[in-house]
Amino acid sequence: MSSKSDLLSSRNGPTSRRRFLTNAAGLGGALVTTHALPDTLADVPTREPGADLSGHSERSQYVKIARIPEAGPGMRNVDPSDAINSKAPLGQLMGTLTPSDLHYERSHSGVPDIDPARHRLLLHGMTRDQLVLTVDELKAMPSLSRTVFIECTGNGWENWKAADENLTVQNTHGLVSTNEWTGVPLKFLIDLVGKDPKSTWMLAEGGDAAAVARSIPLTDEIMEEAFVAYGQNGEPLRPAHGFPIRLVMPGFEGNLNIKWLRRLEFGDQPWMTRWETARYTQLLADGKARQFQLRMETNSVITSPSGMMKITPGYNRITGLAWSGLGKIGRVEISTDGAQSWRPAQLNEPLLPRAQSRFQMDWVWDGKPTKIVSRSTDVKGNIQPDRKTLIAAMGTNALFHYNAQQTWSIDAAGRVRNVLA
Amino acid sequence: MSSKSDLLSSRNGPTSRRRFLTNAAGLGGALVTTHALPDTLADVPTREPGADLSGHSERSQYVKIARIPEAGPGMRNVDPSDAINSKAPLGQLMGTLTPSDLHYERSHSGVPDIDPARHRLLLHGMTRDQLVLTVDELKAMPSLSRTVFIECTGNGWENWKAADENLTVQNTHGLVSTNEWTGVPLKFLIDLVGKDPKSTWMLAEGGDAAAVARSIPLTDEIMEEAFVAYGQNGEPLRPAHGFPIRLVMPGFEGNLNIKWLRRLEFGDQPWMTRWETARYTQLLADGKARQFQLRMETNSVITSPSGMMKITPGYNRITGLAWSGLGKIGRVEISTDGAQSWRPAQLNEPLLPRAQSRFQMDWVWDGKPTKIVSRSTDVKGNIQPDRKTLIAAMGTNALFHYNAQQTWSIDAAGRVRNVLA
Repeated sequence: MSSKSDLLSSRNGPTSRRRFLTNAAGLGGALVTTHALPDTLADVPTREPGADLSGHSERSQYVKIARIPEAGPGMRNVDPSDAINSKAPLGQLMGTLTPSDLHYERSHSGVPDIDPARHRLLLHGMTRDQLVLTVDELKAMPSLSRTVFIECTGNGWENWKAADENLTVQNTHGLVSTNEWTGVPLKFLIDLVGKDPKSTWMLAEGGDAAAVARSIPLTDEIMEEAFVAYGQNGEPLRPAHGFPIRLVMPGFEGNLNIKWLRRLEFGDQPWMTRWETARYTQLLADGKARQFQLRMETNSVITSPSGMMKITPGYNRITGLAWSGLGKIGRVEISTDGAQSWRPAQLNEPLLPRAQSRFQMDWVWDGKPTKIVSRSTDVKGNIQPDRKTLIAAMGTNALFHYNAQQTWSIDAAGRVRNVLA
Repeated sequence: MSSKSDLLSSRNGPTSRRRFLTNAAGLGGALVTTHALPDTLADVPTREPGADLSGHSERSQYVKIARIPEAGPGMRNVDPSDAINSKAPLGQLMGTLTPSDLHYERSHSGVPDIDPARHRLLLHGMTRDQLVLTVDELKAMPSLSRTVFIECTGNGWENWKAADENLTVQNTHGLVSTNEWTGVPLKFLIDLVGKDPKSTWMLAEGGDAAAVARSIPLTDEIMEEAFVAYGQNGEPLRPAHGFPIRLVMPGFEGNLNIKWLRRLEFGDQPWMTRWETARYTQLLADGKARQFQLRMETNSVITSPSGMMKITPGYNRITGLAWSGLGKIGRVEISTDGAQSWRPAQLNEPLLPRAQSRFQMDWVWDGKPTKIVSRSTDVKGNIQPDRKTLIAAMGTNALFHYNAQQTWSIDAAGRVRNVLA
């Protein structure tokens, strides 16, 4: 059904009817005779009344979707008590949002069970006043909402040194999610507490047992865009995501988005906590460690077809997600011949800054083994590097900020596997 | 702490520090002495490790949030088996989205439990071809995502004839929600099946026991914007919201967004189903019934403070939601003196077409009884009517499309109540 000319004639944007009917044959056939009708309609259970209306609408019994707890690079299928993160099911998600209960999870001492009525936020240090705020006081302040991604700086670390061919896109890229977050602009709190103009750094500390604390440089961008969030996708934060309040730092390392936030201290230099001197430093090829590599880079991944999926020759739709800590995604290109040639993917509107964007492209697979890859470019012109370029710059000692182009190989049987370019 | 000059000097947008500290006193005081510190921090449970990471992050035990099933105007606190809708908790939501499990629910024969592998969509009628599509075939087609509201045409019906002062905003306005929906453009399916240019109407039929079916005029706008959705806030539809597929008709009556969609028939005139000849017609003052009043009008409501809440004198933040079936919201004004004078509210970005938009405004309540009201205007210049104007046009026989300005009265004790203007 498919041919080289189909492949070459592929174009970005909606597929023509003729093209789709050809393609659909590859899916098992969309055209049917009227004979199929009665049998088909008989399959639709419209005879019995359904379930009662409810206070909460749960998922279908036919939908199996969950995060997977892991213990670090190569440490999968572990006991939940050993898990350090829980990855979002990117291969099953559609559109751009992640349901709150499936947003990726990362914690250093588990998930605290905090009573919001007793929780406080302390603002102090190089400030005119010292404030202790309740959650209700924060909710009464001017609010904003931003639909942005939060990404663990370890996202992609599975592929730093080698590629396990049995990984899914949930394993390789499941430490990024996009939600609508609602809260109080950091700038409002800074004006409220009267920050000393000489204060150029802020310490954010969490209320979990690990008391994760990070030093954050108070650049104009961060003072404009950071906020203290109490809302997630329309509801209060889930405990795993910082209930009752967390810091949201659009475009920056996930660990800076301090969960269970209890303290903001203002100073004129970084505090050099263990989280920035040991835990979240980047080990370079020469053995030196880079500190404060805070910005999440331009990235993308094909979520379908992706690792451990199986496709059939003929029409297949390629779709995936692209994101950048520097702003909107400007362009995504896809190669279906192992990065020899590239075609533009369709980007779905609206394109929001620092949010995941959905891309898609028609593809007719001729049944021959090949490799598919995506490459994103943000509006500032930053291009997602190929693996060789990233490794040349960073070496293979590093654990964080792996944003190399993701290659999926497809064998003659249509099996999709994780490989290095 | 508050004074007439505070009130008159109130401005749209972020509150100045001096203003907020004055206001905060009305909340119980945000400024604290250092003495409060040790006690406060001792309250933060940072000593024990928290719960294990998980496959799904559930809500906090401290968050009680749910829809309320009702049986129609004035028919509350009914047995779930008698419920015809379940209302979203607008007073507790933040930002603009509604979590999928809290999206308002309306069904005519309960919620069917459909196996997606057996479900089919039939496209037929005045078409070149006849198609029966599987859910997987639909998922392989070009997709779009839209963040839009869906609203039951009965939203607001509690206030058509009289006002029960014990209603919350969930009771009065809980039949509207905003989600990100993902699916296949109707236009693509129309091209695929080869619609006869003479076909100007489409019948959409659901796979529930009631087999709800509506005739939809194929205007250019509808052919451009309608789509068949399989995704909701990033995941497959919930059964209550149409799993595995539903029609999404941005800006039009909720009942046109056919759930459990099983059939699209193309013709050259409406089918005059019972849903458009009896159920969803609008009874006018003269006893005549209006058919096909399909567009949801410009609307808004203050969600806080709102019905059954209690406020204290001094600083209070007014916030709410505005939406229009005709496009983006252009302006929201708020009156805190029973619609005698109006001030512009701050509209939170981004403003998406046919989505709920969040508005907010500072307010210092002087403790005297008053009434607060919101009034929205969309970008096309359509102004939300006051109750007198709506009733003058529609009479009080009607049940649907009630978009009059919502008035909340506040008594000397700070109790907020639902009243007619």
